[in-house]
Amino acid sequence: MSRNPQLDSSGRLAHLLSIEGLPRETLVHVLDTARSFVSVTERDIKKVPLLRGKSVFNLFFEPSTRTRTTFEIAAKRLSADVINLNVGSSSQSKGETLLDTIANLSAMHADMFVVRHSQSGAPNLIARHVGPNIHVINAGDGRHAHPTQALLDMFTIRHYKHDFPGLRVAIVGDILHSRVARSQIHALTTLGVAEVRVIAPATLLPAAVTRLGVQVFTDMAKGLKDVDVVIMLRLQNERMSGELLPSAQEYFKNYGLSPEKLAHADSQAIVMHPGPMNRGVEIDSSVADGTQSVILPQVTFGIAVRMAVMSILAGQS
Amino acid sequence: MSRNPQLDSSGRLAHLLSIEGLPRETLVHVLDTARSFVSVTERDIKKVPLLRGKSVFNLFFEPSTRTRTTFEIAAKRLSADVINLNVGSSSQSKGETLLDTIANLSAMHADMFVVRHSQSGAPNLIARHVGPNIHVINAGDGRHAHPTQALLDMFTIRHYKHDFPGLRVAIVGDILHSRVARSQIHALTTLGVAEVRVIAPATLLPAAVTRLGVQVFTDMAKGLKDVDVVIMLRLQNERMSGELLPSAQEYFKNYGLSPEKLAHADSQAIVMHPGPMNRGVEIDSSVADGTQSVILPQVTFGIAVRMAVMSILAGQS
Amino acid sequence: MSRNPQLDSSGRLAHLLSIEGLPRETLVHVLDTARSFVSVTERDIKKVPLLRGKSVFNLFFEPSTRTRTTFEIAAKRLSADVINLNVGSSSQSKGETLLDTIANLSAMHADMFVVRHSQSGAPNLIARHVGPNIHVINAGDGRHAHPTQALLDMFTIRHYKHDFPGLRVAIVGDILHSRVARSQIHALTTLGVAEVRVIAPATLLPAAVTRLGVQVFTDMAKGLKDVDVVIMLRLQNERMSGELLPSAQEYFKNYGLSPEKLAHADSQAIVMHPGPMNRGVEIDSSVADGTQSVILPQVTFGIAVRMAVMSILAGQS
Repeated sequence: MSRNPQLDSSGRLAHLLSIEGLPRETLVHVLDTARSFVSVTERDIKKVPLLRGKSVFNLFFEPSTRTRTTFEIAAKRLSADVINLNVGSSSQSKGETLLDTIANLSAMHADMFVVRHSQSGAPNLIARHVGPNIHVINAGDGRHAHPTQALLDMFTIRHYKHDFPGLRVAIVGDILHSRVARSQIHALTTLGVAEVRVIAPATLLPAAVTRLGVQVFTDMAKGLKDVDVVIMLRLQNERMSGELLPSAQEYFKNYGLSPEKLAHADSQAIVMHPGPMNRGVEIDSSVADGTQSVILPQVTFGIAVRMAVMSILAGQS
Repeated sequence: MSRNPQLDSSGRLAHLLSIEGLPRETLVHVLDTARSFVSVTERDIKKVPLLRGKSVFNLFFEPSTRTRTTFEIAAKRLSADVINLNVGSSSQSKGETLLDTIANLSAMHADMFVVRHSQSGAPNLIARHVGPNIHVINAGDGRHAHPTQALLDMFTIRHYKHDFPGLRVAIVGDILHSRVARSQIHALTTLGVAEVRVIAPATLLPAAVTRLGVQVFTDMAKGLKDVDVVIMLRLQNERMSGELLPSAQEYFKNYGLSPEKLAHADSQAIVMHPGPMNRGVEIDSSVADGTQSVILPQVTFGIAVRMAVMSILAGQS
Repeated sequence: MSRNPQLDSSGRLAHLLSIEGLPRETLVHVLDTARSFVSVTERDIKKVPLLRGKSVFNLFFEPSTRTRTTFEIAAKRLSADVINLNVGSSSQSKGETLLDTIANLSAMHADMFVVRHSQSGAPNLIARHVGPNIHVINAGDGRHAHPTQALLDMFTIRHYKHDFPGLRVAIVGDILHSRVARSQIHALTTLGVAEVRVIAPATLLPAAVTRLGVQVFTDMAKGLKDVDVVIMLRLQNERMSGELLPSAQEYFKNYGLSPEKLAHADSQAIVMHPGPMNRGVEIDSSVADGTQSVILPQVTFGIAVRMAVMSILAGQS
């Protein structure tokens, strides 16, 4: 059996590339560590010196202000030096290869790379080529994975539902193109959730989705029946008027989370969304802003979870 | 009478959105506080720990390197963590609403938003939707207001002229489109300046300008007669060859501040400009660089004034 | 004799604008100081407080993520506050002159400007107009100079070859357009290198190159014969299919550093490149990644050399 590229020889987390293949204890360790960082971010002075003197590079080959910001805040609250690189605009256009860019930044004694890339597997490629003191965090790669998003979702679920085994969780929307959904499914099954369901029109379902251990629904009423957690996915604008979907209006009618559809879920169910939301497309405003929504707490927990991941990778937690 | 949205229930400054409606004591408190920060910026180590562990977000929906830089420096010299967001390029283009963007950043435990926006009232809208621990600073919104610019101008006037009541102050140029002029007029009248004059071609004067308590001139010789302070405004490039003005040359001939026109003012008059200057359009180089110019001290004081505003909002001054 | 604009009245380095005209002792002082910073960047906490409370402005009128990053890291590891300005996009487009921009930033109590500009001489112009407490570092101007690159190259050569006098050094490639080559030649001759050679096609050689004290070769086999150091230059993409060169392939055949061509050099020769590399154009991958390559150590030493320059300019080393 080949060793998981994310774990070092003593089983410690060396990189966070995907949820797939990570043992349950590793996930739980991140969630437990994040709990202590929630209180840091609520303090008057929201700073701890755990990464002081470390250099964290935000390498965004695909632009994303929001995700970059969450990592930048997390790193700064750990007292790291943060360097933001929009790599698309520079060296890459000068013909330098991805691995030469990484080798150069590594030679500047980088400690951590936070990588977003449109190509699936780019963070793994980078992780294979950096030295033992450099840690790579996947901040979203192609359709592959978005592990910190999945971890903050798990933190949120545990916060509101206390434990995973007895839960029914539904993920709704564009499963086919979603790196978020893939990472969530792996996290939920690893943490022992009883029932993971995906709900989507047939055109937005990957062919082999059942192999991931999920139940598949194309009908919202049936799929949401009695679930404890509803995770809505963002519908990318480019899907809305293409071959896969008739229109945004039609999508909302069938799959948008309205109060009526949410009524099929357990009355204590929580509603989640990774953001940014398309109000009136995948979610109705009354639900997004309603009492069951935990969408903003997800954002808050996201900072703590990213602080936990960085701190664990740096050997400080 | 509806409560001023900038003041909290105990009358403390909670947001800085506009000069209009702020009591005289509040303006004076900012000016007094700024005085102590002038000395900080002259030290060898230009840093105080007042905002350590706070997260200041520069939210520039309209690009402005210069203004963003002044706030970034001010915040860093207060030891805050600064996160720059050029919001135009990202979430907004993904269809997220302004208020969702703000809600998200608030959920990351932001402490302060510095907002520039092309729409008048955007910072007010934001201030109405943030929690009690988050403070909003308007860094310029549409044609509405630019309060920190007006405050640094007042600081500069007080520095050179010691007190406000006896002064004659002329504001010259594109009053119609200028948020700077509006904020200056409110600040000058609130601080009790005897005579506030505006000088502009009729096409660049707002219809109801006299209601603001100013005297209106279309002739420079008459308007500048015996004034103690001359505040020149920047002429936006887009005005120079349009319906409102014949040409930049013609404008300079009539309203550009030359040594000859300045001779109408008091011989001790100071010359101010918010920058960036169009030399040879609204101001002659010999005046901009002359002995009466206090344009660069304005910039220096601008850092101290922004430090004072941030420190007061954070409850530290 | 006019005083060197880079040295103050007591002979201390006040600005780093070019290698030309700097005395040997100044170069050696930078190299000696950099040695101590190499160990800082290898520590667990890669930070020293030498520039705490100082404001370093990265003024990039010409975009360069890589070079900007090296200065940003160097300044942050010295504990400075760093402000990045992509000046091309803002004030300049508002019609402000370069000197007004500089005067404004100086008025904000800047301590250091790191300047890249497409116009040769822009950093010198800036240095002539700043006050005595502000220091300017040229991060590359037109075809003129790139002094920190040359200094890190000298550091690398000294690290591997211990001393300069006995060495033979060849610089290969587009000498005509290269500010890097000009700075390297001045540094090598100032440090007393016995033989400095340039190797290039005749179309990429400046007319008066021999006046700089170098030997000129158009043939790689002859030029590389017995050299101790081979410095390859980057071939700008825009040269590859123009009037000066037939094609990238043809260039590689004649001037690309292959193992065969490198065999003409001394068997202990080191291979250098300022990056970013065009693999297969000016250098073969087997050489770039081979045992004689010191290209990545150059990058590492580059951080230490920039820390040394900043620290010396600030009067701290």
